[in-house]
Amino acid sequence: MSINMHSASSPVFVKMLGNMLHWLQLARTHAETKKFDTSVYLGLRLAPDMLPFSRQIQIASDAAKGCVARLAGIEIPKWEDNEATMDELEARVRRTIDFVNSVPAEQLIGSEERVIELVMRNGTVLKYSGEDFLRHYATPNFYFHVTTTYALLRHAGVSLGKPDYLGR
Amino acid sequence: MSINMHSASSPVFVKMLGNMLHWLQLARTHAETKKFDTSVYLGLRLAPDMLPFSRQIQIASDAAKGCVARLAGIEIPKWEDNEATMDELEARVRRTIDFVNSVPAEQLIGSEERVIELVMRNGTVLKYSGEDFLRHYATPNFYFHVTTTYALLRHAGVSLGKPDYLGR
Repeated sequence: MSINMHSASSPVFVKMLGNMLHWLQLARTHAETKKFDTSVYLGLRLAPDMLPFSRQIQIASDAAKGCVARLAGIEIPKWEDNEATMDELEARVRRTIDFVNSVPAEQLIGSEERVIELVMRNGTVLKYSGEDFLRHYATPNFYFHVTTTYALLRHAGVSLGKPDYLGR
Repeated sequence: MSINMHSASSPVFVKMLGNMLHWLQLARTHAETKKFDTSVYLGLRLAPDMLPFSRQIQIASDAAKGCVARLAGIEIPKWEDNEATMDELEARVRRTIDFVNSVPAEQLIGSEERVIELVMRNGTVLKYSGEDFLRHYATPNFYFHVTTTYALLRHAGVSLGKPDYLGR
């Protein structure tokens, strides 16, 4: 089968978000062993002017749901970014996987030339074709926040390796 | 035009590696301002048991050239991982971009079902279809090392933001 706009997006998000749930499980075990509360993770940052752990997960979620909804031409689910515990962050990841899986492949296939307009926080409008949006905006942005989440856990001493990252 | 195995791989690597050259330039400026030698960057690690900065860049390079060569069914260029200065790391990134650009799109298009076998360091053989190799191995691995490079520079105080990461 040929690669298409569904096969290049939804299964990627679902797989990496599933891997992330596995990292969060290992983070729980680490916290138990070291006897600290998992809520400590939520505020960790790689640099003082980088977003904290909880925001990294929320934005990875946003990147995935926003990409799939935009390519499919449906409304992006709006979720409050109010996760304050590890349980709630895990639920957010699961809800994202469920949403991505709920959008039929046919709604994404053929979206290469769909016009995608992104309004930035400063009001600038970025305009992409569907394919450029997927490969030069949504995917790198998704991986940015997924990898930063992983890096924060590694930094915090959680025992993770490349096979956990890739999900083999 | 429809998404294909070339459009979903080579232009992604070329764009992000180009962005990386821009980050390295900002890292040079930062080192000049703070009066330290750029070679200091090469040994930085996010955690004691994570690979240092120079290896992150070498492996991002390997992920890109390995992916394109494997999908095209040509020999992977073998380069010694002996970069010991910022100049040499930048040259490595440029050489990677040149190699990726040198492989004609036609050699990658249609490689979805090509059988890709990866021999791991422990001898295990991982077997992928071309498309699964691209989306579930090469791309996440590439972004892992690209984002970790970015995170190390942010951690070192280099002034970088999401627009630099995405290359807008």
